[in-house]
Amino acid sequence: MSDSRIKRIRELIRDIPDFPKPGIVFKDITPLLSDADAFRSSIALLSEEFGDKAIDTVVGIESRGFIFGAALALNMHKPFVPVRKPGKLPSATYRIDYDLEYGSDALEIHKDAFLKGARVLLVDDLLATGGTARATAELISKAGGTVAAIAFLVELTFLDGAKNLKYFKPYSLIKF
Amino acid sequence: MSDSRIKRIRELIRDIPDFPKPGIVFKDITPLLSDADAFRSSIALLSEEFGDKAIDTVVGIESRGFIFGAALALNMHKPFVPVRKPGKLPSATYRIDYDLEYGSDALEIHKDAFLKGARVLLVDDLLATGGTARATAELISKAGGTVAAIAFLVELTFLDGAKNLKYFKPYSLIKF
Repeated sequence: MSDSRIKRIRELIRDIPDFPKPGIVFKDITPLLSDADAFRSSIALLSEEFGDKAIDTVVGIESRGFIFGAALALNMHKPFVPVRKPGKLPSATYRIDYDLEYGSDALEIHKDAFLKGARVLLVDDLLATGGTARATAELISKAGGTVAAIAFLVELTFLDGAKNLKYFKPYSLIKF
Repeated sequence: MSDSRIKRIRELIRDIPDFPKPGIVFKDITPLLSDADAFRSSIALLSEEFGDKAIDTVVGIESRGFIFGAALALNMHKPFVPVRKPGKLPSATYRIDYDLEYGSDALEIHKDAFLKGARVLLVDDLLATGGTARATAELISKAGGTVAAIAFLVELTFLDGAKNLKYFKPYSLIKF
């Protein structure tokens, strides 16, 4: 039953109050990673969700998106493409700058990350406001890919990030 | 044959001259990640190497170590523990500061990352001087773990990093 697996995964995401700053409750996924069965379940459930979506490539966002993205790519037997902080990818890149609640940030992808028209599954651990995923979706388009789906392990529904990504119908395994 | 798989993996690691600075030839593993068969082979070969070593937990070093570490943990059906840059792990941590060729750096691990005596497989993508892996081994000991093995995808043999880690008999899938 996927229900009991999801219940177990949810139990393994712990609240850390006042991180990274006072008043914020951080969802810590490290207890989930520390449970081999539950980690495997989370990857299996995501693979099942997207198994029939004709995915060519999995893209993961640095850093925690690498954990779920790489494991998912391995499990689905798809290529893995990292989207990284500026200056980290060694070959020619496309770059996107985007606004955060406080300040701004930037991400890069290799120009030769995939073939034109590749159907991409974008993966990150957490959907908060959706700003990072939205910027990454734009970056994937710049590099010639099509965002076929966006998947998160955890969604903070009160931040309404899914609305920000509604064009992509984002999927989240666990919602808080 | 593992020889033909290793040959293929080696072919997919490309040289990027003058990155991150003039005179340095960077080993770029993204073409390997972009080949689903070769990425799977690399994880399978590492799993075979450590399958009989009584590993309890896989530790990966941020960020590229997350890619291989998480995939390897999934494949070996072991827990995954991330070692991160300071300020990223939300719960109580141990920290280690260590010297680099120019300047210094620091890493953290959750204090509750594993049970006392856990046998740890430490994974990173690249063995250069070995300074980061050595610091991480110390961090694993602080957290009560035992470093049972250290694995790299790629080793730059001319930097002699294996000597720096000789107590741990590090293993590298590909040597340049």
